Amino acid sequence: MTPISRRRLLGWTGAGAALAGVGAATGFAVGSAGSAADSPPRPGVVPFRGAHQAGIVTPAQDRLHFVALDVTTGDRERLRSLLQKWTTAAERMTAGAEAAPGGAVNLNPQAPPADTGEALGLPASSLTLTFGVGASLFEKDGVDRFGLAGRRPAGLAELPAFTRDQIDPALSGGDLCIQACADDPQVAVHAVRNLVRMGFGTTTVRWSQLGFGRTSSTSTEQATARNLFGFKDGTRNLKAEDPADLERQLWVQPGDGPAWLDGGTYLVARRIRMHIEIWDRTSLAEQEVIIGRTKGEGAPLGATAEFDPIDFAATGTDGKPRIPVDAHIRLASAESLGGVKILRRGYNFVDGSDGQGHLNAGLFFLAFMRDPHSQFVPMQRALAKSDVLMEYIEHTSSAVFACPAGLAEGDYWGQHLLEA
Amino acid sequence: MTPISRRRLLGWTGAGAALAGVGAATGFAVGSAGSAADSPPRPGVVPFRGAHQAGIVTPAQDRLHFVALDVTTGDRERLRSLLQKWTTAAERMTAGAEAAPGGAVNLNPQAPPADTGEALGLPASSLTLTFGVGASLFEKDGVDRFGLAGRRPAGLAELPAFTRDQIDPALSGGDLCIQACADDPQVAVHAVRNLVRMGFGTTTVRWSQLGFGRTSSTSTEQATARNLFGFKDGTRNLKAEDPADLERQLWVQPGDGPAWLDGGTYLVARRIRMHIEIWDRTSLAEQEVIIGRTKGEGAPLGATAEFDPIDFAATGTDGKPRIPVDAHIRLASAESLGGVKILRRGYNFVDGSDGQGHLNAGLFFLAFMRDPHSQFVPMQRALAKSDVLMEYIEHTSSAVFACPAGLAEGDYWGQHLLEA
Repeated sequence: MTPISRRRLLGWTGAGAALAGVGAATGFAVGSAGSAADSPPRPGVVPFRGAHQAGIVTPAQDRLHFVALDVTTGDRERLRSLLQKWTTAAERMTAGAEAAPGGAVNLNPQAPPADTGEALGLPASSLTLTFGVGASLFEKDGVDRFGLAGRRPAGLAELPAFTRDQIDPALSGGDLCIQACADDPQVAVHAVRNLVRMGFGTTTVRWSQLGFGRTSSTSTEQATARNLFGFKDGTRNLKAEDPADLERQLWVQPGDGPAWLDGGTYLVARRIRMHIEIWDRTSLAEQEVIIGRTKGEGAPLGATAEFDPIDFAATGTDGKPRIPVDAHIRLASAESLGGVKILRRGYNFVDGSDGQGHLNAGLFFLAFMRDPHSQFVPMQRALAKSDVLMEYIEHTSSAVFACPAGLAEGDYWGQHLLEA
Repeated sequence: MTPISRRRLLGWTGAGAALAGVGAATGFAVGSAGSAADSPPRPGVVPFRGAHQAGIVTPAQDRLHFVALDVTTGDRERLRSLLQKWTTAAERMTAGAEAAPGGAVNLNPQAPPADTGEALGLPASSLTLTFGVGASLFEKDGVDRFGLAGRRPAGLAELPAFTRDQIDPALSGGDLCIQACADDPQVAVHAVRNLVRMGFGTTTVRWSQLGFGRTSSTSTEQATARNLFGFKDGTRNLKAEDPADLERQLWVQPGDGPAWLDGGTYLVARRIRMHIEIWDRTSLAEQEVIIGRTKGEGAPLGATAEFDPIDFAATGTDGKPRIPVDAHIRLASAESLGGVKILRRGYNFVDGSDGQGHLNAGLFFLAFMRDPHSQFVPMQRALAKSDVLMEYIEHTSSAVFACPAGLAEGDYWGQHLLEA
């Protein structure tokens, strides 16, 4: 892999030159990535446009910066204008360019730099930026803020409270969200920070979460990664290579709801604090029984390899199920849930300490699906009710966003919602 | 580079085999890394033992997990025993092995795993673990807790309050510290988490900080990285390649204080919140004048390249100094401070949001030096008094630790302090 750095882009076009012209100058199709069939794929660059948004079935990058924002204006035109600016900037940054023409060293020294500069010299790092809207954008405190109330899709209805939920409202919800994934955390943070900056006066940061280690693979080309309980996580995840399942379980289909969301998906985000110090005192055997897999290999109990088929009916010599009835992999399985699957895309986090002598660590659960209420809700209900793992975890935040389909040439984030 | 993963180590020695024997089994000198001249260097493995602790002049890795701990026992023997266990585990993990023999899949399934498992399969990733002790270990609330009060070095005297300090005591100080640096954050977190785990009943986490992007280079082989103001940071840092300066400015010399710290150094840690949204509204010209360097190249004002010598006496056509009298690089320069230098080793951070609509972002300042009071204090006094940058930042935590010299074969962390 030969990463193309922002520095090299700068050098090729001349420092201070309008980077909007970078595509023409370098042969890279900024402004048409993913839609121009004749532009060669660039290593470390994920096309921004396409049938679906990038950052969903894109092979999960290693690092995350997620931000939820509230809109502070009541002016639909200002919101629209921001979404247009964001889209242009997002497309530039995912291509490895700076947030705006001129960049960190714009020609007019009396103006603030157009880019904040901390990613100068860094390659695109497979950056993806994924956009979503929350229920509160449609209606808040009974007010139809932007004349969008009639377009609110059913999937954005509030989630029920689950047993043991410890949700902090300040770290939940949000009018908008942006998920930045990249192989370099500085690139992900840079992207979020520059978008947040463009939103001054129109949006404010509601909450924000960094993740350092992906815990799910979204493609069969990736090895399964481990969560902070030390187990491989997401072995049976929906994968980019299952097109039929993706249509059935991931992408909103025509007729599901308002047309603006066709081809989109829903994102459920839950910050899950893990009480790792309690888990760490549990025996290996108990850990494996709780999960239903071996810790080392990640094989289903009674099998030998990670991807061995799971025989939920198998019993041991004691006549009991090899995979216990309350094992995590059984409760969360499509077999137990009438065929339901979701696309998980979570990240490990450590947010300093908890003030009680422990690390404040856990899993930032991100999952995409066609309908939260028929997929996430029954799954989480089953887990909250019976999963022994619940004794070791605590859901501390919750949010649902509707993520529109991918962008055609010239489209901006949310266009089909705002202009429908 | 061919990373040697924990998985391969496991495979070679047989799962469940005592990994203490890994050196013999694989030809890697676990237990003598850095002291065995005949063991070939392993890519991605930083020797644990040597004249000085690793993680100080070691080329700064990209990711950080720093933890400050309080000792909850008053029993010196228990403390000593923990430090021995920590040392063994730290040496193992920096060599790419699991925290303890048996690891995550120990042979006795009725026991908790000896390693928490989330780094299984990951290479050593240049992990370094650096250990220090704080003033409160020697005396707390007037109590000589471990009979060590007489060995407290002068450098651990409390720092003065600096103008504009906004220090949160809960995120400051600490009896002990461990700095974990690695190229993979999951490896750094895994190391801290396993050491914290071993400390249950003897230590508790006081505070903890993750950093995602190094902002200083500690070797001339590294490019200078950028902080969240978008500027290259630490261009004139002390570097591993300046042996005379290291002796003069970094390593505690015989006669400086109690002998147990000879060859060691002091670490000053300060969490610096950056008000990036205010900075981002400042013009490029003003940003460059505040710092004293150009934003793109990082050249001193009036020069053209990053490492050009700085002429602090040069004046512009207006007769004023090219580098303003209150520019950050002038105030922090050895020239202004009677020759004082420090070894910076800081990291960028984003700790979610601040609840006020902004990202909670900044620089976790880590700097090593021979004496905080004659090096950091005058530097910070000058900056706090005159640096315009102070309008954009806020020091929210502060700690000083004494980091002993490197470990000879068989030594454990703190041995010369406890057994002097």
